[in-house]
Amino acid sequence: MPSYFTSSPGKVILFGEHAVVYGKVATAGSLGLRSYCLIQSRTDKTVEVSLPDVQLARTWSISDIPRQDQWTGYPYPPPMNFELLDQLTKFVDLGTHTNRSQAAIALLYLHSYLTTDSTASQGYDFSVRANLPVGAGLGSSASYCVCVATALLQLNGHLSTGLDKETQRDLINQWAFQAEKVIHGNPSGIDNTVSTLGGAVMFKKGEKIEPMPGFQSLRFLLTNTRVPRETQVQVANVRKLREKYPNVVDPMLDSINEISTSCKQLFSQEGLDRSQLLTQFGELVDVNHGLLAALGVSHPALEKVREISSKLGLKSKLTGAGGGGCALTLIRDDVSPATVEVVKQLLEAEGFQCMETSVGGPGAGILTLASPTSIQEFLSHDKMYFEEATQEWAYFA
Amino acid sequence: MPSYFTSSPGKVILFGEHAVVYGKVATAGSLGLRSYCLIQSRTDKTVEVSLPDVQLARTWSISDIPRQDQWTGYPYPPPMNFELLDQLTKFVDLGTHTNRSQAAIALLYLHSYLTTDSTASQGYDFSVRANLPVGAGLGSSASYCVCVATALLQLNGHLSTGLDKETQRDLINQWAFQAEKVIHGNPSGIDNTVSTLGGAVMFKKGEKIEPMPGFQSLRFLLTNTRVPRETQVQVANVRKLREKYPNVVDPMLDSINEISTSCKQLFSQEGLDRSQLLTQFGELVDVNHGLLAALGVSHPALEKVREISSKLGLKSKLTGAGGGGCALTLIRDDVSPATVEVVKQLLEAEGFQCMETSVGGPGAGILTLASPTSIQEFLSHDKMYFEEATQEWAYFA
Repeated sequence: MPSYFTSSPGKVILFGEHAVVYGKVATAGSLGLRSYCLIQSRTDKTVEVSLPDVQLARTWSISDIPRQDQWTGYPYPPPMNFELLDQLTKFVDLGTHTNRSQAAIALLYLHSYLTTDSTASQGYDFSVRANLPVGAGLGSSASYCVCVATALLQLNGHLSTGLDKETQRDLINQWAFQAEKVIHGNPSGIDNTVSTLGGAVMFKKGEKIEPMPGFQSLRFLLTNTRVPRETQVQVANVRKLREKYPNVVDPMLDSINEISTSCKQLFSQEGLDRSQLLTQFGELVDVNHGLLAALGVSHPALEKVREISSKLGLKSKLTGAGGGGCALTLIRDDVSPATVEVVKQLLEAEGFQCMETSVGGPGAGILTLASPTSIQEFLSHDKMYFEEATQEWAYFA
Repeated sequence: MPSYFTSSPGKVILFGEHAVVYGKVATAGSLGLRSYCLIQSRTDKTVEVSLPDVQLARTWSISDIPRQDQWTGYPYPPPMNFELLDQLTKFVDLGTHTNRSQAAIALLYLHSYLTTDSTASQGYDFSVRANLPVGAGLGSSASYCVCVATALLQLNGHLSTGLDKETQRDLINQWAFQAEKVIHGNPSGIDNTVSTLGGAVMFKKGEKIEPMPGFQSLRFLLTNTRVPRETQVQVANVRKLREKYPNVVDPMLDSINEISTSCKQLFSQEGLDRSQLLTQFGELVDVNHGLLAALGVSHPALEKVREISSKLGLKSKLTGAGGGGCALTLIRDDVSPATVEVVKQLLEAEGFQCMETSVGGPGAGILTLASPTSIQEFLSHDKMYFEEATQEWAYFA
């Protein structure tokens, strides 16, 4: 009775929000906050799914779940199968646009292609827990998809046939992207790539996503202002501003482009010590936030995060589309735990949610547990339990 | 016994702070807050000077004051006379770098060239009062110099020999610039030009200062944060940032350049009604402040002005070098007096000083009083008295 524990990170945009819409380079990094999946074989030819974060608990007989001709491991996933999608939507019968329904359909879509006859003759328990805010622009859905893809690829033996790490990563990323398409329709592919690869990546519309060489893990305080994000509204506002003042806005977008380029140079610069690197990274954080504020996509709550953190000498920027959502505050190595505690308390006093985390850690990972863990036990753990267990993990990147 | 009442405005930078250091266009406008000068002939061959704002009250015998060969009205002022400057510094004997000493020396420098034998045979009383904060980056010294130049040119008949307005303005501006040089050594010439011409001007390092055509007077709330300005420090910080990240900073400076250009276009655009104009001007205010903040020259007190005013739907930006000093808040025509009152109260509760004023009003002006006003009466008036008397004035621009 094999059991697998998979994990994959959320993502944050470090630099380049909005500018990326106009063909500029942006930088994203993997978030220390991760999703965790436990998958265990059973013998009664059923699949039992527990997704407590979206209040889903269902058991299906495997023979009832629509299943495609078995996928043989390569080539990459076939194009989106809309007929299958319709069948699965009817099968799970949870409506179409709820998180719960989409999570179940994405899982079963991958199940339908990846399940071998051997797995089908046994069944499995499947549970995912997300230790990151859902719907906050932190790539929670991609993190879920990467977790699911890793778990199902591993359960069905698709990762254990002598493939090199790069190919394994590629497989996970491609299938996770397929699951993301089930959920989002037309995702950019950034989130699943960051979640699979870990570290940091640079990307540009229509071009290949490239890992940022030499990126070092950085500590951040992640603050969720709890002000709802307004991605569409903010993107539209920047577009309007640019239409009115193209000569003013275009150089601002160019400047943002160069922030990602400068970040890349920082991490590849010989002889730059960690402390200098963090100081300069903080300067780029500061400038990028200023440019985003100048584009009109900040919010009083985000400015409050800046005000509080700057009082203690820390640099913050909004992350994502702005108008609400989250801010990142860089915690340099020389910042004392007491200072971090003060900042957290001041931010929490404003009603914000604060999480100490890192950016640039490992991507998708997998672990065969020494002694089987029951789903019940998995579900009963405090979420922080998983964070603390991560040193035992094997990662693909 | 002729007596003259002259007046000239302070200035604010509307757009282009810091970028102007790198050869970009900036925009400045005349401030509704002005200096006022009363000059009256007397018969005892003495000059009695009262400058209450710098605590100066002195009486000199005209024959004791160093005097140059009489200036004949044209050409423009001769080059800076450092020998005369030394003589005057010794003569006033008030030290070298106090406001009081510099104000007295600048006045006597102009006296020395402009005084005719006729004036010298009579003498005069001279008093200036400034209704604008001194040393706050609002051009108080240029406003003083323009007042003085206008008064002395008029007293000695240099403006009344059939010259056209443009030539009169030019004379005032050139002599005021000379007085500015006495005070500042190497001033840019922007402040005295704005104070002389009124309205708004665009300027670029090393190029001629150009009036902005079609500029309309705008209402502003001017907030002095009372945080000392740090011009040198801020200019140096921007320079350092640019040296580190030229590719990031240069487009930001380009963008600021285009804000002045967009402002010029706004005022010359056919068919744009006043309300649209004010909305767009506010957008440019917002973007320019964001860019200045991104360059690192804002201050928590300036951000507080932004926070408070934006809560009431008003747009603000820092004006001048930043790091403290003043902020401008645009008061659109549709903003109710009650809203302005609320904003003022909130800002004053933070310890800031608020002044309702306008930008773009008239420049240097002169008025022959119907009935003589004594210096004592002039000095006893509340400063606001002068603001209210301005409709009776004749301006050069």
